[in-house]
Amino acid sequence: MDFDNTERTELSELGEFGLIKHLTQYIEISQESTIKGVGDDGAVINNGDLQTVITTDMLVEGVHFDLTYVPLKHLGYKSVVVNLSDVYAMNAQPRQIVVSIALSSRFSLEAVEELYAGMLLACKKYGIDLVGGDTTSSLSGLVISITAIGAAKKEDIVYRHGALESNLLCVSGDLGAAYMGLQILEREKSVFKENPNLQPDLEGKDYLLERQLKPEARKDVVELLRELGIKPTSMIDISDGLSSEILHLCSQSKVGVELYEEKIPIDPLTFDTAREFNLDPTVCVLSGGEDYELLFTVDLTEYEKIKNSMDITIIGHITNESKGCLMVAKAGTVHELMAQGWNPLQKK
Amino acid sequence: MDFDNTERTELSELGEFGLIKHLTQYIEISQESTIKGVGDDGAVINNGDLQTVITTDMLVEGVHFDLTYVPLKHLGYKSVVVNLSDVYAMNAQPRQIVVSIALSSRFSLEAVEELYAGMLLACKKYGIDLVGGDTTSSLSGLVISITAIGAAKKEDIVYRHGALESNLLCVSGDLGAAYMGLQILEREKSVFKENPNLQPDLEGKDYLLERQLKPEARKDVVELLRELGIKPTSMIDISDGLSSEILHLCSQSKVGVELYEEKIPIDPLTFDTAREFNLDPTVCVLSGGEDYELLFTVDLTEYEKIKNSMDITIIGHITNESKGCLMVAKAGTVHELMAQGWNPLQKK
Repeated sequence: MDFDNTERTELSELGEFGLIKHLTQYIEISQESTIKGVGDDGAVINNGDLQTVITTDMLVEGVHFDLTYVPLKHLGYKSVVVNLSDVYAMNAQPRQIVVSIALSSRFSLEAVEELYAGMLLACKKYGIDLVGGDTTSSLSGLVISITAIGAAKKEDIVYRHGALESNLLCVSGDLGAAYMGLQILEREKSVFKENPNLQPDLEGKDYLLERQLKPEARKDVVELLRELGIKPTSMIDISDGLSSEILHLCSQSKVGVELYEEKIPIDPLTFDTAREFNLDPTVCVLSGGEDYELLFTVDLTEYEKIKNSMDITIIGHITNESKGCLMVAKAGTVHELMAQGWNPLQKK
Repeated sequence: MDFDNTERTELSELGEFGLIKHLTQYIEISQESTIKGVGDDGAVINNGDLQTVITTDMLVEGVHFDLTYVPLKHLGYKSVVVNLSDVYAMNAQPRQIVVSIALSSRFSLEAVEELYAGMLLACKKYGIDLVGGDTTSSLSGLVISITAIGAAKKEDIVYRHGALESNLLCVSGDLGAAYMGLQILEREKSVFKENPNLQPDLEGKDYLLERQLKPEARKDVVELLRELGIKPTSMIDISDGLSSEILHLCSQSKVGVELYEEKIPIDPLTFDTAREFNLDPTVCVLSGGEDYELLFTVDLTEYEKIKNSMDITIIGHITNESKGCLMVAKAGTVHELMAQGWNPLQKK
């Protein structure tokens, strides 16, 4: 192929976020109904009483998943869940999805049925409808592209840009487990390659594997916040790692942050497994990704309402933009947060 | 890869429509707001006064396009247009798109900018907003997945299933040109492979090449019908070939059809080029695809309103389901219409 360009800038020089930033600078909005375009977990479209939230994700074989250890039904389930997670992160209710898949002739009907069954299972669990899509062929692997459509009242939608100084920084669930699940699966794949007769050693790691293979979107947390009468000032879902998600919230809200390492919720199994792999558990959380937990900020006055929630942890607070984005480590030292989130464009 | 299935049914046995039909049988609709799920040009979602139309298309390198002769800017433009065409085919106005692309490291930033520039040009031309997307890497080629979101009043939306006996079958523009454009490009690619020093012979074929490389969605036809005070009883866009689109309308409307070969609008250049390739021009129209014209049915009483429209041709009429789907050939012989539309799953 010859693009006949004199210049050639490698995409890896920019990374995913750099590329998106570069490309989206040319976008102009012309529709009155477009409330929010690129730059959040989803776009927001005005429809009168209700606003529509739209979000899309693409999963590519060999980049986002490895079919040597990911069952197709789980893959189908996860591919839906990661999209729903983005809708919940806008404090909206997902209602419909459209699904496009490209398949090579390597896939049989039975294989596609498994994939589809997982998608429909996720639809059932979250009460949403699969309303359309496109099915086509690919020359090599499997590509899944899903768009989720949600709805919310205008006043309920939570953007990334609303965090304010002195807000509490909160996270749902625990972090790093999906990343450690991936490490285990990758290790067992290598072992299997070396010696196909060895049985995989997955014992006692169920929680980590489930977090990697069958993650859930935190619909329950969105509902809990509503019950508690709390509307977050900003929110994002954690798909790329805590560090880069915090930086997204801060840069869009034009604020700084102080994150306390000791407050980060890490399951003991995640912690011990990270150690077993000679990894720093905090680094796994900051850079690992695929947790699909919700990261959000709330007004300081909400402290009483959330302090006893088992499933929400306060991990820091929002500061003035001039203070920067910092993590106070367990040892008391202070580190600048770096965007080490998962960068698919740097992978081969 | 081992799916560990005892059965294996090849996808090519079913074809695209067979696969879709098979998979979608399991879908259940639970959301009140879902007015129409799979099975039309787009899904329809209720939002009170306005209904939302959603449609999605995936384009895969090596299957849907060949970058040896398709400029990236044209590809970007076309990838948007084919989605908008689906929204117009519901008699709705497209307003927003979300775009996901998977790219291999073979693509430079400059190449992606070209692709994106074409997409934004289409957005500008049709007055729509690019509001989100996903950018990721692929191991081999380029994959583009676009979802378009449109709006229409409930009473304006036109489905595939509304054709009634004695309705006139109409089509916009002329047919078969995009397919002949593709034949020319494929021929020149073969010639170039044999002898890279030969100049491509594209002279006088501009119209065919433009129809293939830079198709337009028939926004103007939707507007014309509105001006004429005509609401079609059913409508579909022609992406796969006239034959399979007519069969879609008929099977969903539970009617038959009589199509008159002599009425099918074919540009003289399309006709002559088909002959040059030793192809039957009518077969090119019936099975070729990528015309992105609108195929629709109107009540017989609308005849006076459309008979003088330069851009709309009456090509047949709707009959009772028991009569079947027939084409009356120029010679007066009668043939059953077959779904020979473009089947991406049978391609390798």
